[in-house]
Amino acid sequence: MAERTISLDQTVLALVEQKKYATLRDILVTMIPADIAALFEEMDDEHTLPLLFRLLPKDMAAETFVEMEPDFQELLIRGFSDSELKEVVDELYVDDAVDLVEEMPANVVRRILKQADPETRKLINNILQYPDDCAGSLMTTEFVDLLPTMTVADAVKRIKRTGTDKETINICYVIDDGRHLLGTVSIRTLILAEDDEPVSDIMAENVVSVGTLTDQEDATALFSKYDLTVLPVVDNENRLVGIITVDDALDVLETETTEDIEIMGGMTPTDKPYLKTSVWETFKARFPWLLLLMISATFTGQIIASFENALAAAAVLTAYIPMLMDTGGNSGSQASVTVIRGISLNDIEFKDYFKVLWKEIRVAVICGAALAAANFVKLMLVDRMLFHNPDVTVTVAAVICITLVCTVLCAKVVGCSLPMLAEKLGFDPAVMSSPFITTIVDALSLLIYFRFAVAILKL
Amino acid sequence: MAERTISLDQTVLALVEQKKYATLRDILVTMIPADIAALFEEMDDEHTLPLLFRLLPKDMAAETFVEMEPDFQELLIRGFSDSELKEVVDELYVDDAVDLVEEMPANVVRRILKQADPETRKLINNILQYPDDCAGSLMTTEFVDLLPTMTVADAVKRIKRTGTDKETINICYVIDDGRHLLGTVSIRTLILAEDDEPVSDIMAENVVSVGTLTDQEDATALFSKYDLTVLPVVDNENRLVGIITVDDALDVLETETTEDIEIMGGMTPTDKPYLKTSVWETFKARFPWLLLLMISATFTGQIIASFENALAAAAVLTAYIPMLMDTGGNSGSQASVTVIRGISLNDIEFKDYFKVLWKEIRVAVICGAALAAANFVKLMLVDRMLFHNPDVTVTVAAVICITLVCTVLCAKVVGCSLPMLAEKLGFDPAVMSSPFITTIVDALSLLIYFRFAVAILKL
Repeated sequence: MAERTISLDQTVLALVEQKKYATLRDILVTMIPADIAALFEEMDDEHTLPLLFRLLPKDMAAETFVEMEPDFQELLIRGFSDSELKEVVDELYVDDAVDLVEEMPANVVRRILKQADPETRKLINNILQYPDDCAGSLMTTEFVDLLPTMTVADAVKRIKRTGTDKETINICYVIDDGRHLLGTVSIRTLILAEDDEPVSDIMAENVVSVGTLTDQEDATALFSKYDLTVLPVVDNENRLVGIITVDDALDVLETETTEDIEIMGGMTPTDKPYLKTSVWETFKARFPWLLLLMISATFTGQIIASFENALAAAAVLTAYIPMLMDTGGNSGSQASVTVIRGISLNDIEFKDYFKVLWKEIRVAVICGAALAAANFVKLMLVDRMLFHNPDVTVTVAAVICITLVCTVLCAKVVGCSLPMLAEKLGFDPAVMSSPFITTIVDALSLLIYFRFAVAILKL
Repeated sequence: MAERTISLDQTVLALVEQKKYATLRDILVTMIPADIAALFEEMDDEHTLPLLFRLLPKDMAAETFVEMEPDFQELLIRGFSDSELKEVVDELYVDDAVDLVEEMPANVVRRILKQADPETRKLINNILQYPDDCAGSLMTTEFVDLLPTMTVADAVKRIKRTGTDKETINICYVIDDGRHLLGTVSIRTLILAEDDEPVSDIMAENVVSVGTLTDQEDATALFSKYDLTVLPVVDNENRLVGIITVDDALDVLETETTEDIEIMGGMTPTDKPYLKTSVWETFKARFPWLLLLMISATFTGQIIASFENALAAAAVLTAYIPMLMDTGGNSGSQASVTVIRGISLNDIEFKDYFKVLWKEIRVAVICGAALAAANFVKLMLVDRMLFHNPDVTVTVAAVICITLVCTVLCAKVVGCSLPMLAEKLGFDPAVMSSPFITTIVDALSLLIYFRFAVAILKL
């Protein structure tokens, strides 16, 4: 289905030029809003876009609008008359309207809020007051609520009366007079139940819910833990204030994962797709980290400088610096990446620290020993015999191999410890990933290398 | 809710010892299956576990069973009598039963298949024939199908009759006599429609579907793209064969992301949580990559060895090797991590290559120039004036800074190009992440460094 939109580009453009609007409309109504949005964005033409948008039926227009990138939404809004804007805003679900208000510049926001009806405006402002990144900012206030005393027939009647503009009616919420959340009834249960059963008899009473201020990452984690499609949000007196739907949870999950991966790659996360960020924004996200890491790496340089005499006496040692540094860095990255992902999936907690440490130590010893053995063979067979390098003595090889074992051990210990420590101290563990671990382990591996060299080779 | 299970441990254990089974049962029925599973796993006692499990009502027992890790499921099955096993298997949805059969050792599988009723056994075998990691292996065959000629009242009657053991009835599928997928009707639409309307009038005809052999990663990507809660799976003649539900899609998404992150960290992905893998398994996942990268890094060492004379003539250059290597590696990682994530989110495609390259080149030039400037100041003020190192001349500083700019440029170009090339050639782009990029860029940065040094310092 996704491929279809790409070949359509040219056809649609040709039809626009020929002003065949009826044909265009016929094509568009067979499509899915997300695909229409993709098609519109491919065209990227500020004259054609509003023209095509106006061809869509009202409900499809709103759904397509929601699927578009903020840049294009802004472009469309600027082209809208007030009545066109009102039509789109009226069709939006409250959580989508909130997203829109959050993304647009202030003058556009004023126009949107002015066109929304008073009820919607109140709901938008209500949700906007919750801090970003918490469950309250993610929820919609459009859900079906039922009273426990209603019968199944009453409930179905209520859904029929109020359900059309609710974000989801698959799960209805049972509340008391004080709006306290008592339980949930799925539409499936309602359909399968007898008409005269009271809602209180068929509702599920164990409801997973979150507070309005719960971190959105924690809230979305519950979706996969409890296999949910919708999650109720309550205030601190367990009064139902909204719901989060699984499609919004999926978006958050994707964004948060991207942020983690960007931080792990040594960058400040941006919330825009790669091709939409400017060169300057990308520079700002990357430069501070490179500078910080460059300054840290100069300490590693100091270590080399301070062992300059030792290196001059045994110049052969220099050639193995990259191998030791890289192997140390990679060993540390493996441990840190595994632990960071484990923490974010809630597989690993701080109380597991000694279990993790003990495991990493054992893995490090086996890895280190195996790498050292492979390296010893390579040093003797390739470097000494094949390339006839007389400087690669058995003692030199021993220094390199012992360093390798110690480096891998240090790297794994540092790599698993720093992310857990960061988590414990309330920092993002993803910061303690490859770039930082590599920088720290580089310094450690050189220190180990030169100490062993000085001691064993008596430099 | 999640916290509650932890403090329950001790209470439950005490109640088991006091044989207060009625009280235990009362506690368990108030809980959510995922939490009960977590509680059971915390206890980790092969005598208590089957005992507690038998206290659960039949439907909760099956739901709890599904939430448990394979090890514990196996432990339970080995303790079950045949009739107990049959009770659990009968309550499982087909896709959960398939997962179970895939995870268990052969002798346990034989017992499970023997206890399943013939109909279920046929469905399980049917799904098992699809290769792993494709939509067919992920789907369940339990869905509600309707005919276009039915009225809304007929449809509701059919749902009431067949709906109780269907994985989801929120979306029903409209098919013709040849089982070709014609459209979908949500339960919401059915409830809001008039009783005598025909299904064909209210069904949605634009249905996003996937083929049985579609890669599971591509299938799950559609959930966030089209905001789905369920996705139909069709054969190559558009006949409906199954559905994928959003909870299974979420699990796949999480697993696939973890795999990507592990590959990016230079490891073979494992599908078990960190604390459940043995030291030997972790070793096997990590060692081959470390060995491969270690061998690659020896080439970098060869570069140093071949410029030994130059280094001997200007020993001061050695101290800046780590800084140049690390900055190059980090610059390359930033580009590769961004591009890899962009590819997996479908933000970046191969046709965007020159856009990506041009952007990275501009970012690289600004980053490189800024870093070189910072470094030049540091070399002159700190190394030369503060530490009185007469070897750090303006010419040496120039060599280092020019190398820095070129290294960052090379790193960004290599970092953005290799993942896109891998994707184009059909490999996993995640392989072309930090560890490999770092190894390649290390060699490049040293080559650049020594060439400039020899040319400018006339070594």
